[in-house]
Amino acid sequence: MIKVGIIGSTGYAGAELVRILLGHKHVEIKWFGSRSYIDEKYANVYGNMFHFVTDTCLDDNLEELAKQVDVIFTATPQGYLAGVLTEEILQNTKIIDLSADYRLKEVEVYEKWYNLKHKSPQFIAEAVYGLCEINREKIKQARLIANPGCYTTCSILTAYPLVKEGFIDVNTLIVDAKSGTSGAGRGAKLPNLFCEVNENIKAYGVTTHRHTPEIEEQLSYAAKEQITINFTPHLVPMNRGILATEYASLKKIKQTDGSMGYPTYEQIRAAYDKYYKNEYFIRVLDKGKCPETKWVEGSNFVDIGFQIDERTGRIIMMGAIDNLIKGAAGQAVQNMNLLFDLPEKEGLQLVPMFP
Amino acid sequence: MIKVGIIGSTGYAGAELVRILLGHKHVEIKWFGSRSYIDEKYANVYGNMFHFVTDTCLDDNLEELAKQVDVIFTATPQGYLAGVLTEEILQNTKIIDLSADYRLKEVEVYEKWYNLKHKSPQFIAEAVYGLCEINREKIKQARLIANPGCYTTCSILTAYPLVKEGFIDVNTLIVDAKSGTSGAGRGAKLPNLFCEVNENIKAYGVTTHRHTPEIEEQLSYAAKEQITINFTPHLVPMNRGILATEYASLKKIKQTDGSMGYPTYEQIRAAYDKYYKNEYFIRVLDKGKCPETKWVEGSNFVDIGFQIDERTGRIIMMGAIDNLIKGAAGQAVQNMNLLFDLPEKEGLQLVPMFP
Amino acid sequence: MIKVGIIGSTGYAGAELVRILLGHKHVEIKWFGSRSYIDEKYANVYGNMFHFVTDTCLDDNLEELAKQVDVIFTATPQGYLAGVLTEEILQNTKIIDLSADYRLKEVEVYEKWYNLKHKSPQFIAEAVYGLCEINREKIKQARLIANPGCYTTCSILTAYPLVKEGFIDVNTLIVDAKSGTSGAGRGAKLPNLFCEVNENIKAYGVTTHRHTPEIEEQLSYAAKEQITINFTPHLVPMNRGILATEYASLKKIKQTDGSMGYPTYEQIRAAYDKYYKNEYFIRVLDKGKCPETKWVEGSNFVDIGFQIDERTGRIIMMGAIDNLIKGAAGQAVQNMNLLFDLPEKEGLQLVPMFP
Amino acid sequence: MIKVGIIGSTGYAGAELVRILLGHKHVEIKWFGSRSYIDEKYANVYGNMFHFVTDTCLDDNLEELAKQVDVIFTATPQGYLAGVLTEEILQNTKIIDLSADYRLKEVEVYEKWYNLKHKSPQFIAEAVYGLCEINREKIKQARLIANPGCYTTCSILTAYPLVKEGFIDVNTLIVDAKSGTSGAGRGAKLPNLFCEVNENIKAYGVTTHRHTPEIEEQLSYAAKEQITINFTPHLVPMNRGILATEYASLKKIKQTDGSMGYPTYEQIRAAYDKYYKNEYFIRVLDKGKCPETKWVEGSNFVDIGFQIDERTGRIIMMGAIDNLIKGAAGQAVQNMNLLFDLPEKEGLQLVPMFP
Repeated sequence: MIKVGIIGSTGYAGAELVRILLGHKHVEIKWFGSRSYIDEKYANVYGNMFHFVTDTCLDDNLEELAKQVDVIFTATPQGYLAGVLTEEILQNTKIIDLSADYRLKEVEVYEKWYNLKHKSPQFIAEAVYGLCEINREKIKQARLIANPGCYTTCSILTAYPLVKEGFIDVNTLIVDAKSGTSGAGRGAKLPNLFCEVNENIKAYGVTTHRHTPEIEEQLSYAAKEQITINFTPHLVPMNRGILATEYASLKKIKQTDGSMGYPTYEQIRAAYDKYYKNEYFIRVLDKGKCPETKWVEGSNFVDIGFQIDERTGRIIMMGAIDNLIKGAAGQAVQNMNLLFDLPEKEGLQLVPMFP
Repeated sequence: MIKVGIIGSTGYAGAELVRILLGHKHVEIKWFGSRSYIDEKYANVYGNMFHFVTDTCLDDNLEELAKQVDVIFTATPQGYLAGVLTEEILQNTKIIDLSADYRLKEVEVYEKWYNLKHKSPQFIAEAVYGLCEINREKIKQARLIANPGCYTTCSILTAYPLVKEGFIDVNTLIVDAKSGTSGAGRGAKLPNLFCEVNENIKAYGVTTHRHTPEIEEQLSYAAKEQITINFTPHLVPMNRGILATEYASLKKIKQTDGSMGYPTYEQIRAAYDKYYKNEYFIRVLDKGKCPETKWVEGSNFVDIGFQIDERTGRIIMMGAIDNLIKGAAGQAVQNMNLLFDLPEKEGLQLVPMFP
Repeated sequence: MIKVGIIGSTGYAGAELVRILLGHKHVEIKWFGSRSYIDEKYANVYGNMFHFVTDTCLDDNLEELAKQVDVIFTATPQGYLAGVLTEEILQNTKIIDLSADYRLKEVEVYEKWYNLKHKSPQFIAEAVYGLCEINREKIKQARLIANPGCYTTCSILTAYPLVKEGFIDVNTLIVDAKSGTSGAGRGAKLPNLFCEVNENIKAYGVTTHRHTPEIEEQLSYAAKEQITINFTPHLVPMNRGILATEYASLKKIKQTDGSMGYPTYEQIRAAYDKYYKNEYFIRVLDKGKCPETKWVEGSNFVDIGFQIDERTGRIIMMGAIDNLIKGAAGQAVQNMNLLFDLPEKEGLQLVPMFP
Repeated sequence: MIKVGIIGSTGYAGAELVRILLGHKHVEIKWFGSRSYIDEKYANVYGNMFHFVTDTCLDDNLEELAKQVDVIFTATPQGYLAGVLTEEILQNTKIIDLSADYRLKEVEVYEKWYNLKHKSPQFIAEAVYGLCEINREKIKQARLIANPGCYTTCSILTAYPLVKEGFIDVNTLIVDAKSGTSGAGRGAKLPNLFCEVNENIKAYGVTTHRHTPEIEEQLSYAAKEQITINFTPHLVPMNRGILATEYASLKKIKQTDGSMGYPTYEQIRAAYDKYYKNEYFIRVLDKGKCPETKWVEGSNFVDIGFQIDERTGRIIMMGAIDNLIKGAAGQAVQNMNLLFDLPEKEGLQLVPMFP
């Protein structure tokens, strides 16, 4: 059994991690960390866990914890892990960090977008960006995994094959994303009250959302050039789910007859299949279908659809995930499976729940 | 592997059955019956099933199906099964009926409340009411299971120990129940449109809801007297969940000092524990806690809490279930496990999903 | 023009008061009081008020305010008004208090249920309980109005005629109430977060909710005897609306032929009509109809329906209001209209909004 | 009093028209047309109208109706009005058509996007596109008003000043729109059921939505060139509200120092003010604010905000409306006020309702 510690186990992502790990055959949770609920019974914080978890919440103590467990998940605010991580800790355990501390390779970019001083930039280089479908092999070797953000997972995977294949003009890429409210966390903040969110939709963080440089960095690797995009998140009155609607101008490519022309449906579909055909967690939908967040709720799937607009020469790509699963805890477990050479799907063969 | 056929697999309860059975180790679904979607791909009817189910929907043909499978689930409108059931079918297969056709022992009561002629009353006597926690042993021997209604499962289990122990005056029992909208089915009816249900709550079927005689019959067995109750369902703007709030006057019982007095918290708690301590699927909450439907969503649990009101001499009992699971598909699978001598929890160890 | 001051103008009830008063022909709001948002623009706190309110929030200073305005609405936490009210203030202005400070005539009852020391019990006697349909004449003469609670307004008006006429056994009365989340206020508390409320229903404050003694006191006046009831509130995932489902045993009454019998539909209907026929804000629905909160949303109406259950000898009464209007701000304005001899409907002829 | 007839009064837009007109000082509704509810009491179809409307629904008979009323609103399916309109009708009455029949000036475009043969193209030329803020003077002279679509109203007004001033490259315009479910109408269709919409978001009609050519046509007039855009609507789990998030590349303009440069915040703000400063129903938000649909719910307002992204050279414009009011019934009444030389705001001074 793999011994697991969770720091930040009482946030929504931490709780989802607990829920998923309870169904994982090879795992034992040893430490339910929570600064806010020290000494409280975990099942009092999350009533759904009654009879499943009898543990009490513990304070965080990464150094001590690292000696006791094989892997630590940190579902903590930005800056926490960077503030406490040491080489000794990494020699004792593996870490899967659900925060943004090690996602961006350039410390200046991190410090600018997060408005935080990075306390341990020395670990940035070795951290592996845990987008499993893209970085699988590197993840297997890592000590420190930077688990991707929810918006970024969805945004990147939806566009990745077309960026990689050079089918779209990457600098025309616009990501208009919509998220359920669990993405905002369990903090008691006025804008997240039921009456403020319900019957309402709004954009927020327009041009300034912190997932922007993360998407840009990863897609730049794929494009092999530095790209800049627009990313606009919206808050939707639902608990779970992210839908990313992405727009980009198609590039003319060489067709079989030698002429230059826009890629056809079949060519684009083939590009998706090239990268995703064997990816269990990515479902490229049939022609004409648009993904719905409800069809992936409760699962680790990414559903992807697309539509070509010949009138404008653009493609509209759409991706849907459950933000707490593929966008956070599920992908973290997928990373853990890779790290420990377990079947990648273990604990994650969740059928989406409808309605 | 147990071979399963589902008639009515494209309703919400049928679809939930599919979802649960996909995670069941000993089951293979052989027949996705659906009158409305004959020859359509099941995954086109339920997008969440994409990549899980590749089958096409078939018409219903109970006689033929009975020869091919070990058990048939009928998640069909009232009257369907009663109209087609034969002795030969029951000799070939077992049937778990999610409709009301065989729940009520008196055919007149059925015909009055359902306003339907019962076409095969000869099977009523042998049908076993599939409330697993109460009728476990009888279920194991049955050929025909009448799977309980959603409201009834919740209403009965919440009050059962106190009725059984004679702690409450059964004729004062009032059940005020609240249900999510999936209980109304997937039929395209105006009152179930999003804009009609959302931001709204209403009672319906007041004094006339068909689950009333079902609750009365089962609680009468427990009380060993004929009882009459008030049952009032309400439609709540949420997908899943039933909460039953039940009111009854406490009866004075003999106390240890010989005097007559109202049962204490401890005595009532002991009554619940007597019947439910070993029931995996029933969680009696800690003192002072009120169940919430969200804490059982996605699971087969019944959460129960209660509060004594000394001012009025009444007890308020509260029970919560996921209407599509313990109130329909989950309990049906629990019944199947009993019928086939499988571990009762197989396929049903679902951790409730929050949020 | 009547000069109005609002203390607590940035809570949901206070904001609704602002909204309603903006459409009132004879009113000018002079003071937007808010301890939490002093010096902030009101329209920054409530974006809907942009272009309507250009004022900035002020601290509360009841003494000073009393000299400047004709009437003060206090939409404040329990205990605030009792802590600052003086005879001088009441000589300078009228007060409509949306808190509970002066609703209960017995200070001990207040102190017990609210767990608060009452700081100015000397004003309790003169305060008039502002349930307009019942206390209209007394209200007109008052200096200090105790505006009723949301649950109580709905609960009392739904049962009042039958209590008054002696048609029901008042001690069998059970009120099972369901409320939208705006009733919980705009405080940033975890249980009111979107993800906690959405897709969920629960009872709370079972046997201990503070509106219980208020309902009991008012219905006791109507019954001319001291009564004790059960009141159970529930939190519903919607913004606005209260539905009260009320159960009581019918009493046999003398029929025209001299015999004793349960009141008929017509007799009960006549009782409702006797008290409500001329009440603009009470709509007794046609036979068989159940009220829905959506049908009163955005209005000052109380919709009432009922159903007799001959099997159990009980009547089920149902009432629906918009908790922020008839349950708070609307009734407060109705009280103001009475106080200032304005048409009672002024500013309140709001057609319910659907959907 | 202006005599009004409504054809299609039992759809959501028709019902909203009734609600608004009930508060309009100069109007009397003479005809509640509804093919689906002939001879039913209107208040039985819409419970909120109980005590407000005592009329019974009538069949549609445009010819007869035209003789009886001053203006007819047709809130009917596409093709209805085009199929029955005659010169004689237009000589007898004015018509405000909430359907799309006369919105597009080129009959081929209508027939292609709507997949319908236009039955009376002879009236297309004289029909005035009823976007009041843009076409005010023409509307005043019209007999036949084509009331704009909900998405189009929001999409056009949000971008109009920048298109008009040449600040954006119109062919880069992308409109990503999100709508509440009332926009889908009151038809009993499976995709609009509560359980299908709730907890879900999806795009639909991608590249093919019928409001696309309407937006293009109107913005082409403003741009004085033919433009082609991408328009993608999404279905959001809320009753009311449309949010349009619009992306476009800024064009360099001549700056005061003679150089070419991107327009500044102040220049863009000035462009909005130039067109909207005196428009009561358009609220351009303060710098940095993003519109929320909840802030306009229940009102005829359009709230507009924008954000410049210097990194990409794009502007993100956001507009919010209540789809049933400014997007349908409210704008129709605004058009009626213009047609009859009434104050444009009459009946429409609705303060948005929150929460």
